[in-house]
Amino acid sequence: MYPPPAGGDTAGTMFVLFTDFGPAGPYVGQMKAVLAQRAPSVPIVDLLSDAPACDAQKSAYLLAALAPDFPVGSVFLAVVDPGVGGDRSPVVAEADGRRFVGPDNGLFDPLLRRAAEVRAWRITWSPDHLSATFHGRDLFAPVAAMLANGEPVPGNETDVAALRRPDWPDDLAEVIYIDHFGNAMTGQRASVVSPDTIVEAAGHRFTRARTFSDVARGQPFWYENANGLVELAVNGGRADLLGLGTGSPVGLTRPVGQR
Amino acid sequence: MYPPPAGGDTAGTMFVLFTDFGPAGPYVGQMKAVLAQRAPSVPIVDLLSDAPACDAQKSAYLLAALAPDFPVGSVFLAVVDPGVGGDRSPVVAEADGRRFVGPDNGLFDPLLRRAAEVRAWRITWSPDHLSATFHGRDLFAPVAAMLANGEPVPGNETDVAALRRPDWPDDLAEVIYIDHFGNAMTGQRASVVSPDTIVEAAGHRFTRARTFSDVARGQPFWYENANGLVELAVNGGRADLLGLGTGSPVGLTRPVGQR
Amino acid sequence: MYPPPAGGDTAGTMFVLFTDFGPAGPYVGQMKAVLAQRAPSVPIVDLLSDAPACDAQKSAYLLAALAPDFPVGSVFLAVVDPGVGGDRSPVVAEADGRRFVGPDNGLFDPLLRRAAEVRAWRITWSPDHLSATFHGRDLFAPVAAMLANGEPVPGNETDVAALRRPDWPDDLAEVIYIDHFGNAMTGQRASVVSPDTIVEAAGHRFTRARTFSDVARGQPFWYENANGLVELAVNGGRADLLGLGTGSPVGLTRPVGQR
Repeated sequence: MYPPPAGGDTAGTMFVLFTDFGPAGPYVGQMKAVLAQRAPSVPIVDLLSDAPACDAQKSAYLLAALAPDFPVGSVFLAVVDPGVGGDRSPVVAEADGRRFVGPDNGLFDPLLRRAAEVRAWRITWSPDHLSATFHGRDLFAPVAAMLANGEPVPGNETDVAALRRPDWPDDLAEVIYIDHFGNAMTGQRASVVSPDTIVEAAGHRFTRARTFSDVARGQPFWYENANGLVELAVNGGRADLLGLGTGSPVGLTRPVGQR
Repeated sequence: MYPPPAGGDTAGTMFVLFTDFGPAGPYVGQMKAVLAQRAPSVPIVDLLSDAPACDAQKSAYLLAALAPDFPVGSVFLAVVDPGVGGDRSPVVAEADGRRFVGPDNGLFDPLLRRAAEVRAWRITWSPDHLSATFHGRDLFAPVAAMLANGEPVPGNETDVAALRRPDWPDDLAEVIYIDHFGNAMTGQRASVVSPDTIVEAAGHRFTRARTFSDVARGQPFWYENANGLVELAVNGGRADLLGLGTGSPVGLTRPVGQR
Repeated sequence: MYPPPAGGDTAGTMFVLFTDFGPAGPYVGQMKAVLAQRAPSVPIVDLLSDAPACDAQKSAYLLAALAPDFPVGSVFLAVVDPGVGGDRSPVVAEADGRRFVGPDNGLFDPLLRRAAEVRAWRITWSPDHLSATFHGRDLFAPVAAMLANGEPVPGNETDVAALRRPDWPDDLAEVIYIDHFGNAMTGQRASVVSPDTIVEAAGHRFTRARTFSDVARGQPFWYENANGLVELAVNGGRADLLGLGTGSPVGLTRPVGQR
């Protein structure tokens, strides 16, 4: 059983939606209808609907970078679930006071790796009618609503290690997201690399700058983005046009003579 | 006059937006601003903004599949309206306790076909300023707000047959939507076809499976999607890459020797 | 200091989001999370997330056309900010009772040009942690929340002329937005041109019609769109397929013999 909060206080909670359902289509709205019915006073924030499709690993490093900005108590509904209808479990992870509902496919591994206080549950609750292909609507959304409402959720606490993927790296040295401006977000935290690091990707070399207006027009560079990740960009241009795409490997090196 | 509710109770109502306005652009937001001003306490759920563009028929079968998941009392603002500014009427349809506001172009036909309790109104209310091209904002959204608020709406009840399209089929054997994963939703309900049905489309044959993880990687199959429709997919792949697109005809046959 | 409202009344306020962040991606959601935390009772309306990317001028004429539909008291969070992290100031503009928060790059020029009552402030407030590349989340969103809450905002009132761009035209005779239907919105108000104006763009001639259903199928025409702009369209077709795109120049002429 996922326990109700000690004091019963659920004020300040918000739902945060993180899916690979796409920028259009009916799936996000169907989940929101469930949340709006079951927890009408809790705000819903669409964080991302175009997480790397069917790719739990890249999505996991993206989610781990975005989540810490949200208030403690937030309930994340995280659905990147290519194994839907198969035998993977529904889980709830707690990481530094934020709650994450989704499939047990590694999606919460980097979050659990980096948080100071973590707990994990396998959910045993199931709805009367469970479709084979849309657990986001039928299972994860109702569970998220129970969490936001401070209701107990049937399930079993488990060792956090069960939700981890020990073979995954601490940081993912790949492009994990291309944004609307063509900037290439990587799964590498900037805080753990030296500022003089040279990033090599798609045959190009990127040195660090603080922001766009600090480099010449047309120049490629990397910077620590607003979520702490190494991001590759071109001032006044598009990094994706350099040949970068989701999944492009990224090499990190120090200048010769440095260590 | 569309009547106010007997008991005056409008709790639990939500607005559900279904349009072909596209995943971006200012039109959905302009409608929402009207709703937020006139009925600020009613939640707004974006169900679909990329319904088949200017295609009332395909949109109608999609809406009919999606609507039953929403709570009784919901007010759907359904705008797929290529005839805007012409002589088609604004209408309100009631189907099993859900209310639908939109143009009289067949958009509510399959809903009315399938519901047990149906009523229909032609709306005579008009705003002081009505643009020629955006009745969604100027007319349908204010009417939806009146319905959600339990206010009477000037109009005349009409025979439901007036909103029907008698020449349309009970199910539409075509692809009506391609989702972000490349899956091809059809307008055919799975509940009225046999599980051993073979679907033929774009020169390919699809047999039924329960879900993705039940078939081999790369294999095409059809399944009953989470809204009850026959949907064509490829495990680990994209059905659209087989040549399927919105409007592709779909053939339904039984295996030889069956009937 | 941007002053709190005299009577303290902030009812009826709404947030209106206008950005070039794209139809997908995490940036809009991150701003909304800030608003939902700081001003949870104020509705948030997504007006546009695909304003002309990094183009303050085209975005400015689009915003000026869209804004007057929103209620007095609305707080617009307008972020088209290619100079983020550079030396442009954050500003608040008031135009006929609506409030606009964003960068000082001309984004509010046409609004200030056309409004009867205008005021302007440079904002001096800054958060404890300000990223170099996402002032929308870190600076503009908190300022918008202060405005909506009726809290004073540290800053200095300035002459409105300081936010103006005197070399910009009253109307922008260019295509500023292509919508989902392929219609081409211009930055030219219809109210200041004669109905018999002939629009020339991409080698085609467009004469005026009231709406789509008033012209033959396949015929190009222009009309006054629902926000008062000259918009180029093809009934049953797409104006973008005629070669029109964002930035296409638009010529306005009167028929020979007219003046």
